[in-house]
Amino acid sequence: MRKALITFYVTAISWVLMGQDHTDSIMLRKIHDEILTHESCYENLRYLCKQIGHRIAGSESAERAIEWGKDALIKAGADTVFLIPVEVPHWVRGTTEKLYYRTSDVTKELATTALGGSVGTHGVLSAKVIEVKSIDELKTLGKERVEGRIVFFNKAMDATLMNTGAAYGGAWSIRGNGPAEAARYGAVGCVIRSLSTADDNFPHTGATNYNDSLPKIPAAALSVVGARELSMALKTDPDLVLQLELSCQLFPRITQANVVGEIRGRTNEFITVGGHLDSWDIGEGAHDDGTGIVQSIEVIRALKSLNYTPQCNIRAVLFINEEFGNDGGETYAEVCKRQGLYHRAAIESDGGGFTPNGFNCDVPDSLYPAFSSWLPLLEPYNLLRFRRGGSGVDIRPLKNNDIALFGLMVDGNRYFDFHHSKNDIFENVNRRELNLGAAAMTSLIYLIDAKMQAGDIKN
Amino acid sequence: MRKALITFYVTAISWVLMGQDHTDSIMLRKIHDEILTHESCYENLRYLCKQIGHRIAGSESAERAIEWGKDALIKAGADTVFLIPVEVPHWVRGTTEKLYYRTSDVTKELATTALGGSVGTHGVLSAKVIEVKSIDELKTLGKERVEGRIVFFNKAMDATLMNTGAAYGGAWSIRGNGPAEAARYGAVGCVIRSLSTADDNFPHTGATNYNDSLPKIPAAALSVVGARELSMALKTDPDLVLQLELSCQLFPRITQANVVGEIRGRTNEFITVGGHLDSWDIGEGAHDDGTGIVQSIEVIRALKSLNYTPQCNIRAVLFINEEFGNDGGETYAEVCKRQGLYHRAAIESDGGGFTPNGFNCDVPDSLYPAFSSWLPLLEPYNLLRFRRGGSGVDIRPLKNNDIALFGLMVDGNRYFDFHHSKNDIFENVNRRELNLGAAAMTSLIYLIDAKMQAGDIKN
Repeated sequence: MRKALITFYVTAISWVLMGQDHTDSIMLRKIHDEILTHESCYENLRYLCKQIGHRIAGSESAERAIEWGKDALIKAGADTVFLIPVEVPHWVRGTTEKLYYRTSDVTKELATTALGGSVGTHGVLSAKVIEVKSIDELKTLGKERVEGRIVFFNKAMDATLMNTGAAYGGAWSIRGNGPAEAARYGAVGCVIRSLSTADDNFPHTGATNYNDSLPKIPAAALSVVGARELSMALKTDPDLVLQLELSCQLFPRITQANVVGEIRGRTNEFITVGGHLDSWDIGEGAHDDGTGIVQSIEVIRALKSLNYTPQCNIRAVLFINEEFGNDGGETYAEVCKRQGLYHRAAIESDGGGFTPNGFNCDVPDSLYPAFSSWLPLLEPYNLLRFRRGGSGVDIRPLKNNDIALFGLMVDGNRYFDFHHSKNDIFENVNRRELNLGAAAMTSLIYLIDAKMQAGDIKN
Repeated sequence: MRKALITFYVTAISWVLMGQDHTDSIMLRKIHDEILTHESCYENLRYLCKQIGHRIAGSESAERAIEWGKDALIKAGADTVFLIPVEVPHWVRGTTEKLYYRTSDVTKELATTALGGSVGTHGVLSAKVIEVKSIDELKTLGKERVEGRIVFFNKAMDATLMNTGAAYGGAWSIRGNGPAEAARYGAVGCVIRSLSTADDNFPHTGATNYNDSLPKIPAAALSVVGARELSMALKTDPDLVLQLELSCQLFPRITQANVVGEIRGRTNEFITVGGHLDSWDIGEGAHDDGTGIVQSIEVIRALKSLNYTPQCNIRAVLFINEEFGNDGGETYAEVCKRQGLYHRAAIESDGGGFTPNGFNCDVPDSLYPAFSSWLPLLEPYNLLRFRRGGSGVDIRPLKNNDIALFGLMVDGNRYFDFHHSKNDIFENVNRRELNLGAAAMTSLIYLIDAKMQAGDIKN
């Protein structure tokens, strides 16, 4: 009798669990069908890239992107759309970016782009060059060899690392700290080989951080091809002169906004999905991070279109200024804290609109097994892993002891070919890959929301 | 004492196995480092695409590709390079490919390309159109509705399938058999919506098969955009006239060749790696299958460069005419059989030069567990699966009870955007993705060869 009773309970529980899994499995299929057969995500990206274009925080085009984002979230069916004011920096590249090298024989131009936040040159800066591979090498050379020169950091990203993000991380300090360190040893300017995986003539920009106790020197990037050319020219003529002219300058901070679109849930809990609306001011900010923006909007559209009424309030947040200080992310977290909003989870897409293969996650230890147990539901969509560590810059300030933070994990092999360059354009985004990313995000949000009902996540 | 002895043996065996795994792990790292930091694979592809271009079997450019392939294998360090004569078809597209639709109001041109093997129109073929979605629908309509018309198959590939290869397979019969079936019901011509995942104006070609007992009617593909336009025009004017002009024709078969480059091993056994050297005669045959060709050559270069002396003879085979009858693959298998060569394995890359994620495999049941046990060595390179079923068209004729056949498994989301179209060009291949594929193939070949020494595979 007892055995029969146990069998009954085990069977009953299995049926309930299988029933839930079956419901979830059907919903994930519906989400993918909905997104893979609709043009909205791709057409939103086309508009953002082609009609608005690049949109650095503080710019007029960022204003237009904010207006567009509001409209797009309304069209996607959000129950509420509103703005959260954010104070952002206002750095302007200006119209002049010129770099020449002059040997005894020739004067040749190299493609260049100022690093984000660089001071201008106020006329032409001319100086001899010292080429180094690292900040450590700069220290070894010391003031004697560096003073009065333009430091040329010529270091490739490590092509042998499987994770291009790790290769970018390994080279990042050259762009982030190289110019400030060069100034420490008396350099008058700094140029770097672009942080790029492509062998082409597009220079890649990105933020550099000055040290307030040191002089601020102009800083720019060369393309990979240009860096090779300059390095070869220096071997022939170590005394060649570099002439740099940049008209960029920093203006006082101004107020822009995060855009929020919300589907109202049945509870007071929240799930946020987002990307950053700002981009660097060259190219079209397609993969960085137009794709994260349109995918977040697509999450709202798909859930509404499937008539899904969530437990949690689901918010798509288009963050402003990830690139140059993360003001949007910081402000959003502050506002949520002030308002006492309880966040169950947040998900970001900021690795480009490439084929998704899982999720990076930064979740409390106690929740990790629950998330991993969902993999059988996700595997049919080639979402194979919850990889611990990392989520996204914009959502990271939300971190506390309860929240589960996720970053969409994608095939990053092409990302740093385009990232922060004129080549980060709509044409380099594949429609299907973009849609698969939106479907992966929507699937994860659905599971977090629905599994809560099934008691899978406990606080 | 006995327990101590067992412990000793277990420990000893573990040490030997761990030692072998450690050696393998180091070799896989070396293979990846070698290939990811060399330009040879990408530069070979550039030459093949840009200096030779498309190279349909039977053409003069296929002759040049064969000569180039020999040289490239010699440069890669093959111990022996030789040709195997292969008889191939000789179909020539000619210079005229025109398609117009004429309503009472307008005459408009649509981009078109003849299907491979199509007969020409011998002047302009003008007829009314019947639009269908499938061969079944054609049967339902019958002779009465079809006779004297041009049949327009307007069927999209299924975007909801995760595997684009399966979606292609699902639509394939329309291109492969649609024109012959249309002829069965008295159609005078046939146009199809391209088998494509892109929403653009590039028509995609590919072989069509006539039925010898039925009339051979001219057959061509429209782009996805063009098919949509024609379908809309037909809704307004069902009596519009399509005008098709194709100058293609079939000439007598001629003799070309497979190119073989070999590294001599210590035994009489063989491993073949390959792709197909021929392509369709539009675009540059970059992903289909220039990438498989240069990856196969890179396998030879990398193993030689790492001074690896294999147990098996390792052959890179550049097969001729996969696209229109698989003559290269059939001939190679016949020659190997005639010469009594024992093949341990064969590996093909013919899914495009995209990020690899494992291997399709068609292997004897007894061997499958051995291959799967290698996954821990391959996982660091994101090679996560041996998926049963399928390998490659060129190597399939080698199939017997012993041989293990593999196909490089890649992210196929972009493949059918380019496949058989003018857009299959060098610029749409990513250097890093291409190199990762070459490294994956070299790694698998090394494991098959080295694990034989360790006794992992038994005949």
